[in-house]
Amino acid sequence: MEKVKAFAPATVANVSCGFDILGFALDSLGDHVILSKNDEKVLRVISIKGDGGRLPLEADKNTCSIAIRAMLDDLGSDQGFDIELEKGLPLGSGMGSSAASAVAALVAVNELLGNPYPKNELLPFAMEAERAACGTAHADNVAPSLLGGFVLIRGYKPLDVIKLSVPDNLTCTLLHPNYQLNTSDSRSVLKDRIPLKDAITQSGNVAGLVAGLFQSDYALISRSLEDVIAEPYRASLLPGFDEVKKAMLELGALGLGISGSGPTLFILSEGKEKHEHFVQKAKEIYDNLGLSLKAYFSRINTKGGFVIQ
Amino acid sequence: MEKVKAFAPATVANVSCGFDILGFALDSLGDHVILSKNDEKVLRVISIKGDGGRLPLEADKNTCSIAIRAMLDDLGSDQGFDIELEKGLPLGSGMGSSAASAVAALVAVNELLGNPYPKNELLPFAMEAERAACGTAHADNVAPSLLGGFVLIRGYKPLDVIKLSVPDNLTCTLLHPNYQLNTSDSRSVLKDRIPLKDAITQSGNVAGLVAGLFQSDYALISRSLEDVIAEPYRASLLPGFDEVKKAMLELGALGLGISGSGPTLFILSEGKEKHEHFVQKAKEIYDNLGLSLKAYFSRINTKGGFVIQ
Repeated sequence: MEKVKAFAPATVANVSCGFDILGFALDSLGDHVILSKNDEKVLRVISIKGDGGRLPLEADKNTCSIAIRAMLDDLGSDQGFDIELEKGLPLGSGMGSSAASAVAALVAVNELLGNPYPKNELLPFAMEAERAACGTAHADNVAPSLLGGFVLIRGYKPLDVIKLSVPDNLTCTLLHPNYQLNTSDSRSVLKDRIPLKDAITQSGNVAGLVAGLFQSDYALISRSLEDVIAEPYRASLLPGFDEVKKAMLELGALGLGISGSGPTLFILSEGKEKHEHFVQKAKEIYDNLGLSLKAYFSRINTKGGFVIQ
Repeated sequence: MEKVKAFAPATVANVSCGFDILGFALDSLGDHVILSKNDEKVLRVISIKGDGGRLPLEADKNTCSIAIRAMLDDLGSDQGFDIELEKGLPLGSGMGSSAASAVAALVAVNELLGNPYPKNELLPFAMEAERAACGTAHADNVAPSLLGGFVLIRGYKPLDVIKLSVPDNLTCTLLHPNYQLNTSDSRSVLKDRIPLKDAITQSGNVAGLVAGLFQSDYALISRSLEDVIAEPYRASLLPGFDEVKKAMLELGALGLGISGSGPTLFILSEGKEKHEHFVQKAKEIYDNLGLSLKAYFSRINTKGGFVIQ
């Protein structure tokens, strides 16, 4: 095989009380990579669509080629590849854009090379791409994008990634209001030290969320979707956050949180029925703030990145 | 019915990474209460066995009668009862002694009155007894003693108690070295504020523990049984803690932690095979410190407190 196309999904990291340890994958929304072998022992990003010209074509800066390079170095291979990237995700939105590109590239290259790695062993290479894109080799976007479902990153020393159960009818609405947010601002508002009682509250909530996922207990999931560590500090960076959250909960959302470090917000619900209500109301609120809104509906992707052809 | 006997089990609270939010119940170890109606509209503790004379007979100080009083007040009943308490648990050991007495009393009185409350609704009355015994109305001993199994206290406002899954072959060894420990000392060594990264580590571990319980994944349970919030500070109050922990892990314990606020230590394992090895080695270590040791083996009680006759 000389050419392959792969898809990897968008992801929601942090997941409210799952700050820094949980992420989940979205259906349909995501990036495509078309990968072809070349004979010149080089990695070349030959085209990028859907990024508005914002992503770098240089192989040492693009997350696709960085991820592939990390894998080839591990394999000791000097095979060259031409990379075509089709972005299906807005950049800098908090939906795991860089992660989806890296994972799609890795799934493709693994396939072209005859699958030298089981899927989960591609993770460290994707994390190298995250290090280049975001400054830290975090796994809470790349792990769900690669593996699908709800994923726990228990820890990094050593890396310990656990797929959790996902209730059949758990759905997600994404609200992406049109403004830019600097990830480093989102980091800098966090406190280095937090009250012990907040840490215990967060522990209780994340334990409740995990139990709710395994028991398909939507009410428990809802009660548990509260973040006392990051959201209280980050909310002030997000225009309309408090109003939107209150309105969505009143409309029957199980919970609402910041996707990654924002500006996208995720809403978890039981079923699709309320999606249009959420979007209509959120549009009203953001309209009043002079912000346009893109909204997406998604089930939870349980498959992760995969080869299309 | 005029007289009834009830049992309630010992419990392990805190459970390592589950500091302040998790507890589990033990088989066989626990307290018995024999309760009889009297015609004098008073609560009387008429006998206590097994406490070495240390527990109060005054009805306003004993956790059995305090718990019963809280329930009768809620019911608006002036029925009187005579209480006989048989302690099967060492006092002040960190095995939920006061909780077991209160729960056994509540299970008995509920039965004698024709079960006006479903079992889980007895919890607030047991928590009142804990408030009297320990200064705070915590639920992490009374909830598992009442309900059995592994119990999550997600939060207190409002009280949210969730029974978790328990792997069939999960077993517990308790090591109770012979020294006294002041609960208020155990509290005072904790920090009011902790590093954010420690809170995240703890969240990851408790999420891993809950996932491991639901998936019967003993290796994951083992990796998750690490407490970075309380144990590092409390260990110094516990003679031999570090040495015992290291030795037990080397002998194949899934994990070891402080039961409640100690001095008892709990070991979780898969099956009974290693219990004798744990006890033998622990005895050696405590012997060298001039401390005698009582050890107990228990499966996880999944039934909670119950009426015997």
